[in-house]
Amino acid sequence: MDHLELIRQLKTSAATKIILLVMDGLGGLPLTPDGRTELEAAKKPHLDALARVSDLGLSTPIFPGITPGSGPGHMGLFGYDPLDWQIGRGVLEALGIGFDLTRMDVAARGNFCSVDPATGAITDRRAGRISTETCAKLVNMLRGITLSGVEVFVEPVEDYRFVLVLRGEHLEDGLTETDPQKVGVPPLPVEPTRPEAEKTAALFNEWLSQARRILADQRPANGANLRGLAKVPDLPHFPELYGLRSGAIATYPMYRGVARLAGMDVLATGHDIASEVETLRRHWNEYDFFFFHVKKTDSAGEDGNFEAKVHVIEELDGYLPEILALKPDVLLVTGDHSTPAKWKNHSWHALPVLLFSPYVRPVPQATYGERACAAGSLGQVRHVDLMPLAMAHAGRLVKFGA
Amino acid sequence: MDHLELIRQLKTSAATKIILLVMDGLGGLPLTPDGRTELEAAKKPHLDALARVSDLGLSTPIFPGITPGSGPGHMGLFGYDPLDWQIGRGVLEALGIGFDLTRMDVAARGNFCSVDPATGAITDRRAGRISTETCAKLVNMLRGITLSGVEVFVEPVEDYRFVLVLRGEHLEDGLTETDPQKVGVPPLPVEPTRPEAEKTAALFNEWLSQARRILADQRPANGANLRGLAKVPDLPHFPELYGLRSGAIATYPMYRGVARLAGMDVLATGHDIASEVETLRRHWNEYDFFFFHVKKTDSAGEDGNFEAKVHVIEELDGYLPEILALKPDVLLVTGDHSTPAKWKNHSWHALPVLLFSPYVRPVPQATYGERACAAGSLGQVRHVDLMPLAMAHAGRLVKFGA
Repeated sequence: MDHLELIRQLKTSAATKIILLVMDGLGGLPLTPDGRTELEAAKKPHLDALARVSDLGLSTPIFPGITPGSGPGHMGLFGYDPLDWQIGRGVLEALGIGFDLTRMDVAARGNFCSVDPATGAITDRRAGRISTETCAKLVNMLRGITLSGVEVFVEPVEDYRFVLVLRGEHLEDGLTETDPQKVGVPPLPVEPTRPEAEKTAALFNEWLSQARRILADQRPANGANLRGLAKVPDLPHFPELYGLRSGAIATYPMYRGVARLAGMDVLATGHDIASEVETLRRHWNEYDFFFFHVKKTDSAGEDGNFEAKVHVIEELDGYLPEILALKPDVLLVTGDHSTPAKWKNHSWHALPVLLFSPYVRPVPQATYGERACAAGSLGQVRHVDLMPLAMAHAGRLVKFGA
Repeated sequence: MDHLELIRQLKTSAATKIILLVMDGLGGLPLTPDGRTELEAAKKPHLDALARVSDLGLSTPIFPGITPGSGPGHMGLFGYDPLDWQIGRGVLEALGIGFDLTRMDVAARGNFCSVDPATGAITDRRAGRISTETCAKLVNMLRGITLSGVEVFVEPVEDYRFVLVLRGEHLEDGLTETDPQKVGVPPLPVEPTRPEAEKTAALFNEWLSQARRILADQRPANGANLRGLAKVPDLPHFPELYGLRSGAIATYPMYRGVARLAGMDVLATGHDIASEVETLRRHWNEYDFFFFHVKKTDSAGEDGNFEAKVHVIEELDGYLPEILALKPDVLLVTGDHSTPAKWKNHSWHALPVLLFSPYVRPVPQATYGERACAAGSLGQVRHVDLMPLAMAHAGRLVKFGA
């Protein structure tokens, strides 16, 4: 039986509240073999005190050695197998700028490029990395394109990147990219990889053809490519699946977008942890489940800034008493993936997990860190195991079988 | 998505080198509850120093409780699910004597037996355990047998055992064994278990019929049975799958054979660890990946000789500085399966794993032993996880999804 089907069968209601606190890219590495990780090095008295009354464990996002993007990392945390529920690049790009995608949409990431006017061959795949301002100006010109029977949205992103969304009945994905990934050849047409997508491919090609006419006299951006053409995945509806009124608190559009795809209510919040905590407090009575996302641990890790990552963890720690004062029945603290400052990128390393509830087997003198978690009483799990564990600790799953 | 398909999609190139150091049958047991395992008891200062700057973990070859043969143990280490990629007994027997099998071959393990000349019923399934010398003489007689359209190879193994290989276009496996597993009844015919194997079954039966005529006047070995008739599995090509130029260093034919099946280059080496290290050094610049196999830990375990197994580990430890001097980016030290001296056989126990790379979370005061590994920062994994982990640590896998 499918993992999600089991959850559907066993879920029950209870007057309990769960917080899933995700510090993006939380997992780290020591800079030297005898050193401490970012989480271990952080002065975080409240998290460490919580660790002494919680289960600790390690969670692998997908399987050992596999580094997840933000999409797959969150799919796993929400209990959806990341290999079964893939989010296309066009969809993530649209979510990243806060575009409110619907299930009727096909989204593509667009790249302005330079082409040889005589032959049509690409001469620069990024159009000399034009400014975001130029990008916005070009996008405005492209907004004049209309297609029969569908709505068309074009939005600037950054530099040479934009988002194109077609919205209409019966649009299908299963579409190839136009970027040949090299210069000296013209862009490829969008081709359907299955017969149902033929009409959609024709619409994208018609858009490209009009776009090239409009851009013909521009320099250097006189062409455009489309990549990662995709529909939103038909995700199981998180609140129905788990029977949880679910609210999402995140400062970055992409994470709000992923939560919205899963069917959570996205709650308005400011740009820092203080605002997020205030949002949590304000909506506390309305929801059973909160996805609470802290972005800057990941950004600091990507920058290779060990100290900055330590500081974000310490900042979050300062707000922990306010969060605990709300008396959540279950508080899960983890990350979507590791972003060690030493690696300067997402990595494959397993995530430290802290699971606070009354029904745990705490280890005295534990602290919240990767190595304490590796020896913790929760053992090793996968991201898709975390929601079932949270549900169980919240008294929201009945037993399987008699 | 299939695990191997994911690796194919994510693999990338890097100027990094990986050594997979396999001490055959490495996992052990304490002789008494308060004692140490072979690995824990060994004086191995270099491995213990390496453990303090590495990840430690436990790896299960197939799943808990399942004892692997050498074939499945190595399939797992190479990243092939041992339940999906099975190697027939005939194939392993041929590899064990260094026979260079091709994908056109069907190999069988042969047993000389004694039969009642009047009734044809088997009277001794092992022909009184004839000497290897007699076996070689009989095999020589059987080399006279020819079959239409295929090449025939017969090779002695030991005592009453030999190997028969048919080579030709369109030979198929899916063939039953002739040994009825009891005396008092005649050998069974080879029968096809699927229609495509009919012609191949007829060829084996024709060979057996000729063999019986030739052996009729011999005593006690006047008959023969065939077991484990199999083709080589159509294994994914290891160097292509991982994008690694791959060399295998092993002193025993079977391990060289399994590496060759996976598509690795088998490097000429002498019969001891010193020669193997010299081979590693000589070929260091030619390959990205080395499978380095040490046999005698397993032989000592099978003999129930705790001290001898300890000694092999100590011997290997003496060579570790030379191996590390080559500066591998990733060094994995583990075994294909456990062979505790106390059990005197392959066992199901999980394997200690040491994973050395710059991107680890070492535990201070660690030593390389089963119980330190059980509490190690790598946690518990399966054999099939080890190659993805090694690839990740070598910077040879890009992230999954955006």
